[in-house]
This record gives sequence, C-alpha cells and structure tokens, in this order.
Amino acid sequence: MTEQFQRQVNDLFEFLRFPSVSTASEHAGDVRACGEWLVGKLSGMGLSVDLHETAKHPVVVARNLHVDGRKTVLIYGHYDVQPVDPVELWDSAPFEPEIRDGRIWARGATDNKGQMMAHVLGVEQMLEERGELPVNLIFLFEGEEEIGSPNLVPFLEEHQGELACDVIAVSDTGMVARGVPTMGYGLRGITCCEVTVRGPKGDLHSGVYGGAVANPATAVARLVASLHDADGKIAIDGFYDDVKPLENWEREMWAQIPGMSKEDVQEITGSPDLFGEPGYSSAERLWARPTAEVNGIGSGYQGEGSKTVLPSEAMAKFSFRLVPNQDPADISRKVQAHLVKYAPAGVTVEVEVGHDGKPYYTDPNSAYGMAGQAALEKAFGKKPVLIREGGSIPIIKDMQDILGADSLLLGLALPDCQIHAPNENYYLENFEGGIRMSQVLLDELANVK
Amino acid sequence: MTEQFQRQVNDLFEFLRFPSVSTASEHAGDVRACGEWLVGKLSGMGLSVDLHETAKHPVVVARNLHVDGRKTVLIYGHYDVQPVDPVELWDSAPFEPEIRDGRIWARGATDNKGQMMAHVLGVEQMLEERGELPVNLIFLFEGEEEIGSPNLVPFLEEHQGELACDVIAVSDTGMVARGVPTMGYGLRGITCCEVTVRGPKGDLHSGVYGGAVANPATAVARLVASLHDADGKIAIDGFYDDVKPLENWEREMWAQIPGMSKEDVQEITGSPDLFGEPGYSSAERLWARPTAEVNGIGSGYQGEGSKTVLPSEAMAKFSFRLVPNQDPADISRKVQAHLVKYAPAGVTVEVEVGHDGKPYYTDPNSAYGMAGQAALEKAFGKKPVLIREGGSIPIIKDMQDILGADSLLLGLALPDCQIHAPNENYYLENFEGGIRMSQVLLDELANVK
Repeated sequence: MTEQFQRQVNDLFEFLRFPSVSTASEHAGDVRACGEWLVGKLSGMGLSVDLHETAKHPVVVARNLHVDGRKTVLIYGHYDVQPVDPVELWDSAPFEPEIRDGRIWARGATDNKGQMMAHVLGVEQMLEERGELPVNLIFLFEGEEEIGSPNLVPFLEEHQGELACDVIAVSDTGMVARGVPTMGYGLRGITCCEVTVRGPKGDLHSGVYGGAVANPATAVARLVASLHDADGKIAIDGFYDDVKPLENWEREMWAQIPGMSKEDVQEITGSPDLFGEPGYSSAERLWARPTAEVNGIGSGYQGEGSKTVLPSEAMAKFSFRLVPNQDPADISRKVQAHLVKYAPAGVTVEVEVGHDGKPYYTDPNSAYGMAGQAALEKAFGKKPVLIREGGSIPIIKDMQDILGADSLLLGLALPDCQIHAPNENYYLENFEGGIRMSQVLLDELANVK
Repeated sequence: MTEQFQRQVNDLFEFLRFPSVSTASEHAGDVRACGEWLVGKLSGMGLSVDLHETAKHPVVVARNLHVDGRKTVLIYGHYDVQPVDPVELWDSAPFEPEIRDGRIWARGATDNKGQMMAHVLGVEQMLEERGELPVNLIFLFEGEEEIGSPNLVPFLEEHQGELACDVIAVSDTGMVARGVPTMGYGLRGITCCEVTVRGPKGDLHSGVYGGAVANPATAVARLVASLHDADGKIAIDGFYDDVKPLENWEREMWAQIPGMSKEDVQEITGSPDLFGEPGYSSAERLWARPTAEVNGIGSGYQGEGSKTVLPSEAMAKFSFRLVPNQDPADISRKVQAHLVKYAPAGVTVEVEVGHDGKPYYTDPNSAYGMAGQAALEKAFGKKPVLIREGGSIPIIKDMQDILGADSLLLGLALPDCQIHAPNENYYLENFEGGIRMSQVLLDELANVK
C-alpha cells in the first residue's frame, strides 16, 4: 500500500466508524455526526460546503468555484447505512472497520461510504496535484437513501437552480465480477408496504381456543402465499401490465456476462437451488423482471422450545422491485387491492404503505454514456459490460425528472460484498480503482462535445 | 376474607413467586426451588414427601399413611408454568401476584399452581380439622407439564407399584362459565413440530438478488398455507381418518352450555369474527375436532422501519390438537409427509418433531364419575355440566394406560383466566370453592362401592 493510499484508507475508516443507520431513530445523532464529519473533510479540501437541514437527516452539498463554459458534473452518494442485525453473524464489529483478505469489512464499506469516498478522494488527489478541476463539480450527499430518500425530492425541487448540471455520476451499484468494469443503464424501482393481521385481542391458549378462531399467523401466511402462483410468477391482478419487454440485444449481451451463470449465482448466494419466474435467466430475472419479496414476517412465540399459543397478531413486510415502465403508485394500489381481496376470514388486515421509487432507464451509448465507458476502461484496463441493476436508487429517476440530467452508474461493488447483510465488505482494489476512475471521469466528461 | 382463607391465599402467593418456567433452560434453578418449596409445604402438613430427580425437573410425591381397605386417590398437578412473553403486555409483574377485582393475577395463578394448591390446602384443612383423611392419598406433582411431561412416563413406569390407585383427580381444566361447575370426560391430544426453511447462505439484498433465488419467508408461508383448504378444513392427507365422530347426546348437551354461543366465544377471545371447520359449532370445534395451528413464525427483519433484505432462513412452530382416536405418532408422520410433499422449490426444509400426547376419553357416568359430579354439585351448589376440553394433558392418557385408573377432570379455570397469555388470573371464588370441593371429593370417593 502506498503512503497516499494508506491515508485514503484511513479517511474511509474514520467515515465508516459512524453508525449512521438512518432507519433507527436512536441513531439520528450518529447520522448527523457522520454528515458533519463529511462537511469537515470537504471543507478541508478547499470546497465550499453547506449542511442543509431536512425534516430528518441532513443533506451535504459541496462545490468548487464554478467557471462559465465548463461542464457541470454532479456526483451523488449517501452517507447513511442499513441496520446491522443479526449482529451476531458478523465476524468483526460492523462499525470497527478491519482489513482482511484484501477487503475492508464494515457496514457501509461498499454501500455507500466506500464508493462515495472514492469520488471524494479522487477529487482531493486531483486538487492536490493540479490545484483545480477540469469541470464545475457539485457533490450531493444525503443521509436518507436507505429509507427511500423521503426529503431529497423536496430538496432537489427547492435547490433546482444551484444543482443544475449536465450529467450525474453515481457509484452505488455493482461490477458483475472482479476485474470486469460495469456500467449500468437501468435500475429497478421499488414500493414497500407492511401488513398487520389482527385476530383475538390477546394471545390465546392454542388448546382452549384453537379451532374456533382464525389464527393471524396462518392468515398472514395465506396472504404471503397468495402473492405468487406455484411456478413463482406474481399473481397480483395487472402486476405485469406495464413491464417493458426485454430487447434482444440485452438478452444476448447478458447471456455472455461473467458471473451470471446458474452456477455462479448459486455459488455467490449459497442457495440450494435457483428459483424464479419461468422463462427467464437469472440476469433477466434480476435486472429486467419485477419481484414480490417478503423482507420480514413475524408472529407468536419465536424463542427456545415451544409455547402452544394462538397469537393475537402477525405482520409481514413486503417490498416489490419494479422495472420500466411500472409505476410505484399504480403497483401499490394493485397490491393493496390484492391484500384486501385475499384477506382471510376471521381477522382484520391493515396495510401501511412504505417508501417507493420509480425504475430508471437511459441510453448507455449517449455522449456522456461513452465518456463513462471510457473512464471505466482507462481505470480498470478493460471494456466495460453494460447491464441494468436489480437494486433501486429511486433518486436517480427523480434527478432525471427534476434536474433533467441522466446518471452514469459506475458501480464498484462486487457480488460478494454482502451489502445490506452481515459481513459487508469492500475490495481494496475497487477502492483504489474507483479513486483512479473518478479522476479520469472528470477529464472525459470535460471533453464531451 | 376469613383469616383461614387469607392464610391460604398467602400460601398460594409464595408458590406463585417462583418463576418456574420449564421451557427456558435459564429458569431450571427456579423450577427446582419451586419443587423444594412444595416439599416443605407438604412435609409441614404431616405427609411423607419425596423429591425425585429426573433427567430435567424433579417430581414431588407425597402420601399419608395408607391403610388397607380404603380407596386410594391420586391427585395430580404441575408446578411449572408457561413463559411470560410478551411481558410488556402484563398489567402487573407476572411473578409478583396481586389481587384486583376478586382475582389473583400472576403467571401460573390458574395453570396450574392455583388449582393444585386448592387440593393441597383442602387436604391441609381436612387434616387440621379431623387429624386424618378418609382415603389413602397420593399427591403427584411434576415440573414438566408445559414441555410435554417428557420424564413422567418413565417415572410412572418405574414407580407403578407405589403409585397404584383406584382413581385420579386433576384440576387443570376449565369451568364453562362463572358458577357453572364442569366435569371433563375428554381431552385433546397434541403433536408439535418446528420447521426450518433455509435458502441462501446469508441474508441477501432484495434488489440485487430478489427474483433469482427462492425467499425462505415466502416458502415457509406457502407451507403454512398448505395446511388448510380455503374453508379452514385441514388439508393433510389422512388427517381426519381416525377422528371419533361426535355423538348426538354430546351435540345436544353442548348446544345448551352457557358461555359457548358464537357471541360468547367472540367476546371472550376478542376476535373480529369466528372462523373454523365448516359444519361444527364452536364447542364442537374446540372439544371434538382436531386443529393445525401456527404457534410462531419468523423470518427476516422484524424491527422498526423497513430493511429490504431477502432472508436466508425462516421458521414456523406448529402444534396439532388431536381428538379420540387420533394417534400422535401417526399424525406426526402424516404432517412430515405433507411438509416434504409441499416443500417449495429452491429451499431446504427441515422438520424437528416436538412433544406429543394422546387424546383422552372416559365415561362420565361411571361410579367414580358420579362421585366427581357429586363433589362439584356440593361444593358449588349446582349440577355440573359434562364437557370435553380443548387443551391437552397428555399425562392423563398415560396414567390411564400405565396406572389403569381414570381421571376426574374437575377444572377451576374460567374462560377469561388468560392461561398461557399475558395477565393470567384466577378467581378467588374458584380458589375457595376448589378448597371446599377437594374435601367433599375425598369423602365421596371414600364411599364409592
């Protein structure tokens, strides 16, 4: 490790030590402290920085001195992270970053602190070496991505003028395999909801009352089971109506992409077998087809041994990944109608609608797209593959709508980085390559005609 | 409250303060301490008492001096209790008994410490007043009823000679309503199992991998949903094969029993509507028809907010209540075959078989049955109703098989005693009546020809 890279790793470690879990109210202070640390870092680089209050977690905006006639590039990232539980499955403490086997292990190492810091530190290096940047730069870092960016759209609308830009760069997606630079041109959208099923007013003895009243755990299970047919196709009326069909060039390119074979996906996930919508490959299921997933389900006694109780309540948390041209509000209505239609007898069903985000799609071969491809090729020494992403970054679509600029998705995650899961990690080689890529990118974008 | 009854309540309070939760290994010491307290109490009454070690929690046996030519009566009870969670739903601490509104509130108040103490204190009172009992008495108190009495059958087999008896009395069941003495002549059996569904080796990001691998939470829900048809009938092959049909006199008597109307059951359970097997009343569903209940289900993220995870594992705990002449081992095999047959694609399903117990049935109008009915009538001033019970006391059937004696089920619980649930409670009037009933019963049984 060079002395310079060691300093860059140290910076990232400081950033990773903040438990900036945006979904948990008890961590609100940690999210803020993390944002304030970022303000200090960016100010120290000579940028002018503002910490903007929102209804929840603050937004950090930084810029260099803008000069007429140059391209304006906005780099987006988020400094909040997912919760860490089940914490007992981590091999090292999630907020005490460690290097093992060429990777940094910590919550947020890849998603998104490690990736956004590649841009911050690339810019820092460029400023140290040249004293200036070839473009007008705007860093836009939020603290609410993991809860669906509830306050960023109003923020974008309010600051539309000062955030005006030609193109956006985002590293919050993945490379398909080690050493295979990857540019994304599509993202799935999302809509979430939580269902609460209520039966008896309190837990009952399953012997004394079992058989005469509906069991909420059974009822919630029947609701979950109603979402798919036996083959794994989603059984909600009208769910697939607006799905943009795959194009032939996509099916052909994706069939060749390393790391996406049945064996690869099975190995990386450790699943006993693959399972999904009939008629599609794994890449197609992940990048171009929608899903209905249970993220959590719970009812009754879950402890050691048995407790023969008939629970009074049950819940399930759902998320639906959406593809172009599905609309989250439309799907949310269809889901709610389905849950009402299939509500089992003898219980009440309450649906609480959660966050959502639109799917995203753009042309990978536009002038800015070609600049992104070139930056990846120069930084990683290989032509990038073009993919869509299974994950959702709703704000990408919102920025397209509000700021009128497309995003280059220049991901640095790898399939075994375990984002959102225990033992999240970040390959040092991608951190180093990302810092290089960030600098090449600004030069390439500066030269777009 | 008389001074005597106040002393009896104090005794019960002492007994209730032991957190003798048999299912939780961290409470093993509390279960033992509770058994030892019982030894002290019974010795103090002049009985000869033994605390017998088992592989888990001890058995307490006490007897008076047995005299040839008298009837031998065994009184069974258990001093272990159910877990207390969700503890936040209790209005007072579960192991700090309190009297409010004419009831004692504590875990175990009714099930079974309060009911067994009615017999202990009835015997104490009789001994104080007469210096002797009209029968040869055996108290048999175990500490493992709530975990299925795993060590009591071997104990009965080993001590068959010294436990030989003519009849058994058990107060561990219910009265159908306040002031309506109730004798049970049947009990449901039980068989339990826990299913673990495993998918990916760790939790996955539901965007990055959702759609390409089976979701264990969805899979476990599909398994649960497969147990019943849409009408609420159990859909396991052969499940109803050995069910003894209801007799006409039972359907007629049960239709008249107070507290069992649709409105009564709905009010006591607080369910939005009743639901169960088509073609049967609530009493029939509870006392003469089998069930398939989920006691607990869990997977993924169950905390505040959302976490868009695809969980690696899911579990469900099942209990099946059985009626004469279903056999727990046979049903357990049928359940396992069903779970294997319906195991969803892309996951592995592991079934761990739990405790079980046979259903019980006897003639309520035998000579001993008539003595039990007379004792209830004299203690509570009204002819008892004859019912079966929805709950399971597997040991009743085991004692019938091993000791060759039938049990009189002389319940003192009421429908709103909330056994196995938060805010368990015991009516003082039933405690007092139970102490009276226990004494009348010994006289009635002594006189059986």
